[in-house]
Amino acid sequence: MKLSIIRSACGSLRIHPARPGSRVSGLSRRCQPVGPANDRLILRAASAASSGGTNPKVSVNLGKQSRKDDGFECDSSLSEVVQSTKEAMLALQRRHSTVKPLLAILQAGEDDSLLEISKKIAGRIGLNVTQICLTKECTEDEIVEEVLKLNDDPRVHGVHLRLPPASLTSRVLNALKPEKDVDGISDLNMGRLVRGDLSKGFVPPRASAVMDLLEKHDTPLEGKTVLLIGGEGPFGVALQCLMERSGLVALKNQWSSKSLQSQVMQADAVVLLGAKNMDFPHTWVRPGAAVICCEPTLETDDHAIEISSKSGLEYLTAAYRTQNVVRSCSRWLQAQQYQPWHLQCLKLQPLTPVPSDIEISRAQTPKPVDQLAEEIGLLPEELEAYGRSKAKVRLSLLDRLHKQPDGKYVLVAGITPTPLGEGKSTVTIGLVQALSAHLKLNSFACLRQPSQGPTFGVKGGAAGGGYAQVIPMEEFNLHLTGDIHAITAANNLVAAAIDARMLHEATQSDKALFNRLVPSVNGVRRFSPIQISRLHRLGINKIDPASLTPQDVSTFVRLDLDPSKITWQRVVDTNDRFLRKITVGQASTEKGQMRETGFDIAVASEIMAILALADSLEDMRTRLARMVVGTSRSGQPVTAEDLGVSGALVVLMKDAIKPTLMQTLEGTPVFVHAGPFANIAHGNSSVLADKLALKLVGRDGFVVTEAGFGADIGMEKFFNIKCRTSGLRPDVVVLVATVRALKMHGGGSNVSAGAPLPREYIDENLSLVAGGCQSNLRKQIQIAHLFGVPVVVALNVFKTDTQAEIELVCQMAKESGASDAVPCHHWAQGGRGSLDLARAVNEAASRPSNFQFLYNIEMPIVEKIRTIATKVYGADDIELSPEAVAKIDYYNQQGYGSLPICMAKTHLSLSHMPDKKGVPTGFVLPIRDVRASIGAGFIYPLVGTMSTMPGLPTRPCFYDIDLDPVTEEITGLF
Amino acid sequence: MKLSIIRSACGSLRIHPARPGSRVSGLSRRCQPVGPANDRLILRAASAASSGGTNPKVSVNLGKQSRKDDGFECDSSLSEVVQSTKEAMLALQRRHSTVKPLLAILQAGEDDSLLEISKKIAGRIGLNVTQICLTKECTEDEIVEEVLKLNDDPRVHGVHLRLPPASLTSRVLNALKPEKDVDGISDLNMGRLVRGDLSKGFVPPRASAVMDLLEKHDTPLEGKTVLLIGGEGPFGVALQCLMERSGLVALKNQWSSKSLQSQVMQADAVVLLGAKNMDFPHTWVRPGAAVICCEPTLETDDHAIEISSKSGLEYLTAAYRTQNVVRSCSRWLQAQQYQPWHLQCLKLQPLTPVPSDIEISRAQTPKPVDQLAEEIGLLPEELEAYGRSKAKVRLSLLDRLHKQPDGKYVLVAGITPTPLGEGKSTVTIGLVQALSAHLKLNSFACLRQPSQGPTFGVKGGAAGGGYAQVIPMEEFNLHLTGDIHAITAANNLVAAAIDARMLHEATQSDKALFNRLVPSVNGVRRFSPIQISRLHRLGINKIDPASLTPQDVSTFVRLDLDPSKITWQRVVDTNDRFLRKITVGQASTEKGQMRETGFDIAVASEIMAILALADSLEDMRTRLARMVVGTSRSGQPVTAEDLGVSGALVVLMKDAIKPTLMQTLEGTPVFVHAGPFANIAHGNSSVLADKLALKLVGRDGFVVTEAGFGADIGMEKFFNIKCRTSGLRPDVVVLVATVRALKMHGGGSNVSAGAPLPREYIDENLSLVAGGCQSNLRKQIQIAHLFGVPVVVALNVFKTDTQAEIELVCQMAKESGASDAVPCHHWAQGGRGSLDLARAVNEAASRPSNFQFLYNIEMPIVEKIRTIATKVYGADDIELSPEAVAKIDYYNQQGYGSLPICMAKTHLSLSHMPDKKGVPTGFVLPIRDVRASIGAGFIYPLVGTMSTMPGLPTRPCFYDIDLDPVTEEITGLF
Repeated sequence: MKLSIIRSACGSLRIHPARPGSRVSGLSRRCQPVGPANDRLILRAASAASSGGTNPKVSVNLGKQSRKDDGFECDSSLSEVVQSTKEAMLALQRRHSTVKPLLAILQAGEDDSLLEISKKIAGRIGLNVTQICLTKECTEDEIVEEVLKLNDDPRVHGVHLRLPPASLTSRVLNALKPEKDVDGISDLNMGRLVRGDLSKGFVPPRASAVMDLLEKHDTPLEGKTVLLIGGEGPFGVALQCLMERSGLVALKNQWSSKSLQSQVMQADAVVLLGAKNMDFPHTWVRPGAAVICCEPTLETDDHAIEISSKSGLEYLTAAYRTQNVVRSCSRWLQAQQYQPWHLQCLKLQPLTPVPSDIEISRAQTPKPVDQLAEEIGLLPEELEAYGRSKAKVRLSLLDRLHKQPDGKYVLVAGITPTPLGEGKSTVTIGLVQALSAHLKLNSFACLRQPSQGPTFGVKGGAAGGGYAQVIPMEEFNLHLTGDIHAITAANNLVAAAIDARMLHEATQSDKALFNRLVPSVNGVRRFSPIQISRLHRLGINKIDPASLTPQDVSTFVRLDLDPSKITWQRVVDTNDRFLRKITVGQASTEKGQMRETGFDIAVASEIMAILALADSLEDMRTRLARMVVGTSRSGQPVTAEDLGVSGALVVLMKDAIKPTLMQTLEGTPVFVHAGPFANIAHGNSSVLADKLALKLVGRDGFVVTEAGFGADIGMEKFFNIKCRTSGLRPDVVVLVATVRALKMHGGGSNVSAGAPLPREYIDENLSLVAGGCQSNLRKQIQIAHLFGVPVVVALNVFKTDTQAEIELVCQMAKESGASDAVPCHHWAQGGRGSLDLARAVNEAASRPSNFQFLYNIEMPIVEKIRTIATKVYGADDIELSPEAVAKIDYYNQQGYGSLPICMAKTHLSLSHMPDKKGVPTGFVLPIRDVRASIGAGFIYPLVGTMSTMPGLPTRPCFYDIDLDPVTEEITGLF
Repeated sequence: MKLSIIRSACGSLRIHPARPGSRVSGLSRRCQPVGPANDRLILRAASAASSGGTNPKVSVNLGKQSRKDDGFECDSSLSEVVQSTKEAMLALQRRHSTVKPLLAILQAGEDDSLLEISKKIAGRIGLNVTQICLTKECTEDEIVEEVLKLNDDPRVHGVHLRLPPASLTSRVLNALKPEKDVDGISDLNMGRLVRGDLSKGFVPPRASAVMDLLEKHDTPLEGKTVLLIGGEGPFGVALQCLMERSGLVALKNQWSSKSLQSQVMQADAVVLLGAKNMDFPHTWVRPGAAVICCEPTLETDDHAIEISSKSGLEYLTAAYRTQNVVRSCSRWLQAQQYQPWHLQCLKLQPLTPVPSDIEISRAQTPKPVDQLAEEIGLLPEELEAYGRSKAKVRLSLLDRLHKQPDGKYVLVAGITPTPLGEGKSTVTIGLVQALSAHLKLNSFACLRQPSQGPTFGVKGGAAGGGYAQVIPMEEFNLHLTGDIHAITAANNLVAAAIDARMLHEATQSDKALFNRLVPSVNGVRRFSPIQISRLHRLGINKIDPASLTPQDVSTFVRLDLDPSKITWQRVVDTNDRFLRKITVGQASTEKGQMRETGFDIAVASEIMAILALADSLEDMRTRLARMVVGTSRSGQPVTAEDLGVSGALVVLMKDAIKPTLMQTLEGTPVFVHAGPFANIAHGNSSVLADKLALKLVGRDGFVVTEAGFGADIGMEKFFNIKCRTSGLRPDVVVLVATVRALKMHGGGSNVSAGAPLPREYIDENLSLVAGGCQSNLRKQIQIAHLFGVPVVVALNVFKTDTQAEIELVCQMAKESGASDAVPCHHWAQGGRGSLDLARAVNEAASRPSNFQFLYNIEMPIVEKIRTIATKVYGADDIELSPEAVAKIDYYNQQGYGSLPICMAKTHLSLSHMPDKKGVPTGFVLPIRDVRASIGAGFIYPLVGTMSTMPGLPTRPCFYDIDLDPVTEEITGLF
């Protein structure tokens, strides 16, 4: 039931009272005659007619009296809307069992009868309703505050503002998120309706109700004339637009118009808007025409009794509002689903000669990061912007898209490089620029965050180079979003905790230590959770501090760290060579507890390796807790958890775990996250960034990530450590080669940083190139094939390379088993220069990859090391120092035997001898020492000496770095 | 001229051709007769009539033929709009000489005649126009890309999309910023128009033109009937809304309607929309009625010739568009002006007992920081969000609001505290909560950023406490926006540069050093700008490296730092006591160049003091460059500039210079920026944050900032160092006292951290309180009066304080000269508990402040020290150690004599003896040593030993700190 005025069979007016749950068949039983007070318009009209002395039989009706003469069509409308909404909701809940559409009603004062109707209809449909009741005197500020809360509440799908008209100010209306404006009253939704775009906004439910009645009254509507009387406001506009779009001729007129009578007489239907206290003789209405009285809101409760006459329309309105809520929920769920990308790429116009990296970066304006995020299907709430051009992405994305299939997973590795590097980062960035911006295949680059220290030393930036860069490059190279700073803080908190603990243990009795570690607070002593966890590890299963025996107390309070066996170093993100070996604790306050130790560069911290391997906050917490910082005098490993510091570490790292979104020069997305060392750690960017990116690119998209050093090191670790941890499986390996490095492996003379390149590297020399291809390139391809993954060789072309050299490399690479081999010109041309590579990768990815690990994780440590040395490096065997043997025994004994191996070897040769180029053979790999990163989860044998702290040269880069204080433009980064 | 159809005096149709610059008087001369091809509607109508054989005299006209029978009113309309727009533009440019309104036209293909008209009108008005021409085949992506660029371009005030209708997709229309949508075609602007809110959107210029014509035709419009034919689209809706709001009866009908004839015959005016190829006999039009033909756009150039008939309307439309551009520019300028605040405060519902700080913080949801920023009048482009709840604010704000008067400037200082602290931060935050959220007076708290190290040591958080906090407190206490990390990186880069340089100088000849410092790049040697600057300081005015003599080279390449006189320390933001004194350089790679040095906590870095005092990027750069890091063997100061590192430092610090915006528990704004030590530095938050805040609060607002330690130290430095540097003048000092501290000064026994409070601090003891008031409180009030600033005493009430104690303090404080003295309950009640303080501060700020410095900057260093010691501390005199005397001589000789003094003295007593409470007298202040922060710009005499590196206790806070991996909620911070 929903009509305010219906035809009465007996000729007197009868009003169907509003009743939820009534069925068509039961309606007539609840029909009630109502007196004049109950219906302003018609009864006044009737009385006007009466006063004229005619007392006519009222024939204002809904038409089609020949078929239906009892007004039931209104009820059938309601039933239909209720039914279809119910079904939509059930369908929605079948797909998303945990989601329930929710309508929030923000009201001033108590429920009135309209609200009762709304709630009854919601109840019939099974829609959840929540009411926020402000006082009648509530201020605009209070209303806006509540609206903003409802906007932010993801459980709320629609908001109905049941407020006095005066409270519906511009500020209030437009504070409401348009996607929750189920009444369609915000300016944006009104504009959408006017333009006829109903895909995003909402039709005001009352307008839907009126249209429904008209349709029921007289189908087809096309060409019929409807007269709207008195509707100057937005509602009248909305209604008129809807009518016109239904093909109705919608005429508007005012109550005061002289032409009113003639128009009413000609109309097929009359809709009365804002009709309070207005009337006209109903004799004007022509037979068969409908009259619909709809007054948008009731201003006071005083008129509550009068509503009943319009409650039919109110019921229908409430039902359409519910429909809008369900639609809103469904759109929200839709938005939560995987969204195809609409990537707006940035145009490149490469210059010749290629300008400096910072000039190229500065010349391109990056898209706002929130725009990029939207383009790749991230939700606003998944993004935490850090300024304009970088943002952290929340891990909740993984839950949201967990059903979405992963994209293709591509690793960029390299042949054994010269000390100058062969451009893996630029190839990676060029490749995604080509895939996304040119082939229109979704792709993501996942890069390591560079250490800041070397930026001011000799290295310069690490954001790629030329026309294949991440921008803004200065943001990439400097603090970024503070992850490395967080690692530094966490790492050094562990270091401070170690030394302070040793001092306190050295200077206090068991009892004093216990009293301080488990202090009495308001007379009560309690272990903290982290202390209970230590007690458990120690086998002391007591939770009452008073119940510990003196032996228990001693065991508990003394970590008894052996100062000579502390493996934890401090870190700074500065190239500070003087900190390589230092003595700490020389102040008198440290009471002679001095010891030798050192600082590493921040990215060498085990916490960085953990960040790169963790796959959730929980996992990171577990790994941080189990980090071993040294050994007790009795030979037991001492962990961060023993120090009581692991909770604090995860608090320091809580934001660092979220990957940072940036973009390439062509506006395609990049994740920058984690950058562990490639020797003492595994040298790969984070598992989490790869996982997020694989979801975002979608099934046919590509995630391109990069491994540090040559394929023998970075790729081997990528497969055996990173993929083993993450469970992700690579589809293609891109192997980067340069003519320069190939010539070196083919027998060219020494290449070193700072010195001019020897002649043979500048002139064409096919035999050197061929030598390099036959040796190192072939071997590295074979290494990738050990893992069962197809290889595409990317020849990073330099301007001195000749066509014959390029063709030779490509030909020989294919002969060596590469799926394809192509020259790349990304440095000079951006993505366009890497199109061939992109096509080759796309093609290779379509072939099956038969990925397998190189070794079983349960093999003995020595066998795992031997497998890598012989199968990957080509060694005849390995040779362990006595120290290495002892460490391996110790690790086995401590239960670390089944960790994967992370070789710390030079990247300048397949062997341990940096000057042996090509494919060295006939050597035995010496294992000088073996160490372990228990938190990160690998054993790292040392082959030679690894520097973990770079130094500054005589003239560091910083001499050229400066900033214009006015434009804030940075110079001198490269 | 702008009318499509005008009455022709001779009875045949005459069309005024479109001509820019034509004047009314000249019009008739350019009238041209046009044939049928030139006017679709009327000529077809005429021919329809002709075929009927009547060939009537066309009487379609613009009405008022009795007064005006030549159609000139259309030209007068144009003239009026042009004239008024011109005037508006001139008025705007008189106020803002550098701003010129700019219309951007985004078009597909060449100019057509409509564009010619637009440009001519713009030319007549003097409006700048820029055209972006895409090809006719341009894609939606290309259009959106250009639209987004125009959105972001602050020079563009309006955008006209001259594109084929098919290109005006929903995405395109709504990509355009509504504030630049001068055609009023975006959904939001259409919705605004429908609702009748024209304060923000724009009326479509063509609709304005039509309304203008109607008005000219027939004033007043009220009650007249206008028939709109064929306007189903948004334009028709807009027009109808405007008409209805003008009191017109706007009827709409379709061309196909049967009632068309009767409606046309009754209408006072007929407006033809989308009328191409449609017509009706003009005999229908009743005499005196106007007919306006407006076809929104021309689809192809083929019809160009037909435009002339409608070009009058086109001219008027173009003029109204220009008017919208000027309006848009004016609104933009308005938005650039100071905006009154519309602060949406967060409600507090304090619980009893008061929960832990982190629980209180977590229970309150902060407003999104961009909402807060908007509320306090920041522009979106001035904000750089860092996640949801903090953002950096750009310094460009100072330029934008430079004419805006500053608000009141309030300093919160304290009496000499107990070691437990007396709650200056909570008073500061409680005060702004009371001012902003309760008294509705704009206010800003400017706080120091706390060091992260102590958060994990003994101190816990520093974000205030109880119901007077900055939220989210964990963000405040942890990395914040990375400023301290940036300081650490910058500080340690200097340190690494020092040691590396000493190593290189020790191991290389002058020539080798020179070759490396000034390398030959492609055969050319050049000095970098920073090297030229060093040459200048050395008096070597040469720029060609080859021209340096061997002596010049030696002077240039050797800083010759004396290892025993290096004053620069490394820093970490960790409580790491073992780094207080260390030996560095012990690795063999450093070739025996080891030396003793140490680490300070990061906030003790001179760079932190510089950040706090700098007033621009330029100023910071200058200060960083002049930092002295040590002395050469010949006794010359060596600066960061000499090391070549100052440019890199400013690059590292470029974001740190922007203050961070956060909010209190009640949603009022807070700046967090810089936190230098209060002993070896001046202990005040940044000058820039205060300056920005003083502009934002406006004339009647308040900026409340806090000085570290007691008033004798923090306040004295605030006045003599910070205010001297900034030029800002304080209006009120709030002096924080507690009954606890007063009892201590009155003779109570020792108070120390960790130990339970002695009895007299818990029970009422009026005589101890009175003793404290008479001594320390009175003295600290007098110190403030030395500077001529009124004092309000804020008694931070603890639950053990009795009413009698509270009243006694307030009474005695007023007797000692305080303007007022009030108890504060912010900790338990939030801003409501500080209302009395807020009122007292407001009252005190209305009185004149006679601020003066304590000493003249040109006084000798010794005299400045003596003045502070005797006048502020109450010493009889000072006593300088020989080392101090020698240093002062050296500083005088180096020209540092006129720097202000920053005393490094204990905060636990007015004297140098921490156990002397109350007002010590009869002592001579010993000056152990004197040091200088030349970059920050002060001399700091050391009175006793200052610890610059805290340690960790046996059970550091971190034992309790943890994070729930699922909810990400942090526990254990307090």
